[in-house]
Amino acid sequence: MKIALAQQNYHIGNFEQNTQKIIAAIGEARLMGADLVVFSELSVCGYPPRDFLDFDDFIEKCEAAVEAIAAHTSNIGVLIGAPQRNPNPLGKNLFNAALLLHHGAVQGRVFKTLLPTYDVFDEYRYFEPAFEWQVLHFKGKKLAVTVCEDIWNLGDNPLYRIAPMDELMKQQPDLMINLSASPFDYTHDEDRKATIKANVLKYKLPMFYCNGVGSQTEIVFDGASMVFDAAANLCGQMPMFAESLQCFDLNDDGSILQPILEPAHRLPSQELAPKTLQPQLNIGQIHQALVLGIADYFGKMGFKKAIVASSGGIDSAVTLALAVQALGAQNVQAVLLPSAFSTAHSVSDAEQLSQNLQNPYTTLPIAPLFDQFLNTLAPVFGNLPFGIAEENIQSRIRGNLVMAIANKFGYILLNTSNKSELATGYGTLYGDMAGGLAVLGDLYKQQVYALANFINHQAPIIPQHIITKPPSAELRPGQKDSDSLPDYDILDPILYQYIERHLGPSDIKATGADAALVDRILKMVNVNEYKRNQFCPIIRISPKAFGVGRRVPIVAKYLT
Amino acid sequence: MKIALAQQNYHIGNFEQNTQKIIAAIGEARLMGADLVVFSELSVCGYPPRDFLDFDDFIEKCEAAVEAIAAHTSNIGVLIGAPQRNPNPLGKNLFNAALLLHHGAVQGRVFKTLLPTYDVFDEYRYFEPAFEWQVLHFKGKKLAVTVCEDIWNLGDNPLYRIAPMDELMKQQPDLMINLSASPFDYTHDEDRKATIKANVLKYKLPMFYCNGVGSQTEIVFDGASMVFDAAANLCGQMPMFAESLQCFDLNDDGSILQPILEPAHRLPSQELAPKTLQPQLNIGQIHQALVLGIADYFGKMGFKKAIVASSGGIDSAVTLALAVQALGAQNVQAVLLPSAFSTAHSVSDAEQLSQNLQNPYTTLPIAPLFDQFLNTLAPVFGNLPFGIAEENIQSRIRGNLVMAIANKFGYILLNTSNKSELATGYGTLYGDMAGGLAVLGDLYKQQVYALANFINHQAPIIPQHIITKPPSAELRPGQKDSDSLPDYDILDPILYQYIERHLGPSDIKATGADAALVDRILKMVNVNEYKRNQFCPIIRISPKAFGVGRRVPIVAKYLT
Repeated sequence: MKIALAQQNYHIGNFEQNTQKIIAAIGEARLMGADLVVFSELSVCGYPPRDFLDFDDFIEKCEAAVEAIAAHTSNIGVLIGAPQRNPNPLGKNLFNAALLLHHGAVQGRVFKTLLPTYDVFDEYRYFEPAFEWQVLHFKGKKLAVTVCEDIWNLGDNPLYRIAPMDELMKQQPDLMINLSASPFDYTHDEDRKATIKANVLKYKLPMFYCNGVGSQTEIVFDGASMVFDAAANLCGQMPMFAESLQCFDLNDDGSILQPILEPAHRLPSQELAPKTLQPQLNIGQIHQALVLGIADYFGKMGFKKAIVASSGGIDSAVTLALAVQALGAQNVQAVLLPSAFSTAHSVSDAEQLSQNLQNPYTTLPIAPLFDQFLNTLAPVFGNLPFGIAEENIQSRIRGNLVMAIANKFGYILLNTSNKSELATGYGTLYGDMAGGLAVLGDLYKQQVYALANFINHQAPIIPQHIITKPPSAELRPGQKDSDSLPDYDILDPILYQYIERHLGPSDIKATGADAALVDRILKMVNVNEYKRNQFCPIIRISPKAFGVGRRVPIVAKYLT
Repeated sequence: MKIALAQQNYHIGNFEQNTQKIIAAIGEARLMGADLVVFSELSVCGYPPRDFLDFDDFIEKCEAAVEAIAAHTSNIGVLIGAPQRNPNPLGKNLFNAALLLHHGAVQGRVFKTLLPTYDVFDEYRYFEPAFEWQVLHFKGKKLAVTVCEDIWNLGDNPLYRIAPMDELMKQQPDLMINLSASPFDYTHDEDRKATIKANVLKYKLPMFYCNGVGSQTEIVFDGASMVFDAAANLCGQMPMFAESLQCFDLNDDGSILQPILEPAHRLPSQELAPKTLQPQLNIGQIHQALVLGIADYFGKMGFKKAIVASSGGIDSAVTLALAVQALGAQNVQAVLLPSAFSTAHSVSDAEQLSQNLQNPYTTLPIAPLFDQFLNTLAPVFGNLPFGIAEENIQSRIRGNLVMAIANKFGYILLNTSNKSELATGYGTLYGDMAGGLAVLGDLYKQQVYALANFINHQAPIIPQHIITKPPSAELRPGQKDSDSLPDYDILDPILYQYIERHLGPSDIKATGADAALVDRILKMVNVNEYKRNQFCPIIRISPKAFGVGRRVPIVAKYLT
C-alpha cells in the first residue's frame, strides 16, 4: 500500500484556500500512485480554531469543506482532520476527529481521546474525549488512526488515564497513522521523534506521522512529519518549517521502501547559548521558526511591509535582520528616533546595520517633541525632578511616531522586546512595548546575543559594536540596563528557573543564587503581569512563552 | 445543628490576609454558636489562582494556610476550599477540594467532579475530576458536600456525564453544602437561585450554599449565598457584592430557623435597556458590580488614585461617576485634553461634570503637540492629506499625556472604551485604548446610556447635554461616530447576536437585519481581534465579555 503524507500550512477559517490546498495535494498524491493520503489535525479549518468552534456557522463551513474534499476521493483514500458534532446528547458538542474519505464519502471516523489542556492548548474547552475506539478498514488493512496527543501516553504520562493505542491494539491493526498539529519549541524536535519511535517499539507496527506546518499567530508548527517501519527504522523524515508531500511504499511485512527524501533543510544542532542557561538550544531551528513566524503573520494577515524602530541596540538589530529575511529588504522600513540622550554611535550603528541589510531607513529626532511635552505638562509637573515619567514620555513619543508612519503607509510595527525585559517589566507600555507582533519576546537577552552571533556567522550583518557595547535604553544621560537590572548572565538563569521550570524562590536560592536578588526578580516578574497582559502576540520558541500559554492573575499578591 | 456561611472577599495568593480573614470568621461563628462554618471555593488561595497552581511553592503555601486554619478548629467544624495534591500517579496533579477541619486537623475531604472549562473558566487545565464520592460525617450528620459546578448538572446539563449529587444520594446524606466561586453576570442571579432550588426539589434535602464575593481582575464574584430548607423554602439570602457572615439553625426534620437577615442591599430589577437589545438588564446590579470591580482592583493592587481622560462624552462621564463612587471624589483626577477639533461644549460639559462630582480636573490642550508631531513627520508624510493616521496621532498624544501624569503621581488610568467600540475596533491602540482597567468595556453603547440614566436617577450627576448630544471622537472637523459606524440602535443588537449568542451571519440576517450591514459588522469584529488582544482587563458583567473568556485567533480569515 502506498501512503502519502501531506504536510501543509493552513490559514485558520480560510475554508476556500484550505480546501483548494487539500484537493491539490490529493491530485498530486494520486499522480504519485498513492492509495491513501494523510493530512494533519483539523486540516479543514486550521489549528487552533479556538472559540470559532463555538459558532455553529463555523462548524457548518467545516462540514461543507469535508463534502467538497470528499468529491475528490473517488479513487484514493484521504484522512483529514475536522471537528465533528457529538451525536450523543451528553458531553461537549464536538469531537476532534480524523475522517477517512473514499469513493466520494466519509467511510469512517475516529475521535481524539487525549485532549491537551495546558500551556497554549485548550482542547477540553471545546471537545468531548473519545470513549470508544475502532480501527478503520481500508483496502484490506486495519488502520489504527489517532490524533496528535493520543500517541503521547504510552501508559507513563501522568496527565492521562487512557492509552488509545492500547485500546486499538485489541483489534490487531496493521499500521499506525497519526494526524498532528504539534508545535515547535526548542525542546520538541528530539522529544517528538523519541515518542513516535517509542510507540513503534511498543506496538511493533509501522507509523505514519503527519504534522502540520506554519505559524498561527504565536504558535509555530514545524512539520517534521516522519515514517517508521515496523522494525522502528526511520524511513521518512520530512523537512521542518516547510510544506512537503511525500509518498511511502508499505510492504505487507511492515517494511517500507524508502523514498528519495527531499533535502532535509535541517541545520546542525548548535549550542551557542551561554552555559549558565539550562536549555540546550538549536539556534538554527529557532532562527527558522522566527523567520516563518514573521512571514506567516504577514502573509496570512494580508500585509506586506514592516516597520521597526531601530535604536542601534541588539534587539532591534536582530529583529530587523530577521524581518529582512522573512519579508525582503525593501519591505522593511527602519526608523531611527534619537533623543537628546542618544549616543552618536547609536545612530551610526543603526545606519550601518541598514546599509548592511540594504533596507530603507529614515531618522526623526524626538527632542523637539519631548520639549513640547514638557511644556504642555509644566502646569501639572511643576518643578518635580526628571524621573521615570520623563523616560516613558520619550518612549511613547517613539511609539506614536512609528505607529503614525505605520498607519499612514500600511506598515505593521514589529516589536523588539526580549523575554528578559518582558519578564521584569523593563519596558514602556504604549512605547517600546507597542507593535503587532513580538519577534524576540520568547528569547532571553543572552539568547538574543546567541542569535545575533548565529546571524553574523552566516553573513556579517550586525555591526560588531552593536553586539559588544553595554545595553542601554538611552532615556536619560549615561543610562545602562545594569542600572535597573542585574547583569543578564545573572538575571536570565533565574528567570528561566522560575518561568520555564516553575521553581519557587527556595528552590532557586538552593541553586546558589543570591537570596535577596531572587526575591527581587520574582517580584518584578509578578508585579509586571499587567504590562504583559497588554502585549502583542509573541512568536513562541520555548516550552513556556509569555502570552496565551501562561495565564497568571494580574490582581494578586504572590511573591510580591 | 447550627451552620454559618462566611461570604468573604479574598486576595489571590495573599495567604496571610486570607488566612487571617478565615480565622477571624471562625471566631465570629463560634460566638454565634455555630457547630460548622462554611467558606467558599478555593478560599485559602482565592479564586481563580490560574497558573500559580503550576508552582509547587504555591501549593505548599496553600497547605501551610490549611494547617494554620486547622489550629483554630478545636471546638468548631470548618469547611474550606483548597487545592489538594492528587495521590494517584495518574491524572492531573491537583484536585479542587473542600476540606472538613475539626479538632485541629483535616477530618475529611471531597474533590470537585465537574470542572468548568468554558468562557472564563479553565479548571480542567489544572485539576483532575473526582471519580468517587463520599459523604462527610460531622456530629452525627452526613454532609453531602460539593464544589460549585457540581450542583449545576441535574442530569440535564449536556456538558457533563456525571451528576455528583446523584452519587452522594446513595449514602443517604442529611443535608447539602456547596462551596462556590460563582461570578456575576447580568443573567446569573436568577439562574443561580433556580438551579439551587432545583437541587433542593430533586434531592429533598436542605442546602447551604456559600459563594465568594469580590472582584478578581476582570471577574466579579457577587456573593448572594443562600439557604433552603428541605421543603425548598428560601430561609437565608445573603447580600450581593458585600461580605457577610450568617448563622442558620437546622432542625433534625430539615426545617431551618430563619435568622434575622441583613438588609438585602438589593436594588429592584430595572429594565432601562432599549428593547432592541435582547437581554433583560438589572442596571442596579450592573452598577454595583462595576463599582466593586473598580474598588477591588485598586484596593488589591495597592493603588488609591485614578486618572480619567474626560472628553465631555458619555463614556468618560459614566466612568468618572463610577470611579468617584468607588474611590472617592478626591481620588479621581480628570484631565481634559481638547484638540483644535474639540467643540466648546466638550470642555464645558466635562467641567460641569467634575463640578457636579466635586473631583479635581485640569485642562491640557493638545494642539501644540499635534503641530509638533506634524512638523517632525513632515519629511515622511510630505503632502499626503489628513487621514486616520492624523486622528490616531491626536489620540496617542492624549494617551501619552495621561500616562505621563499617571506615572508621575502614581495614578492608574481608567479606560473608558465601551463594548460597541471594542467590538468594531473604533478606537486607537495606545491612545484611547490605553489604561489599566476598562470600566465600561462589557457594556454596549446603549447600555452605557442606560447606566447614565440610572446614575442620574439617583442624583443629577451627568449633565443632560452629555446624554443627548451625538457621540463624536472629535479627531477631525465635524466628526460623528455615525460617519464610521451604524447608529448604535442598529449596531448593538447585531453585535449582541454575534458575540453573546454566537449566531452566524445567516441567522442574524434572518432576524431582519440588513445583509450587507451584518457582513460589514461581523468583519469589523473579526479583523479587530488584534486590537482587543492588547487591551486591558474589562470588568465582566455579561455572559460573554471580551478578554479572558473569549479566545479568538488573531491571524485568521473567518467572516472577513
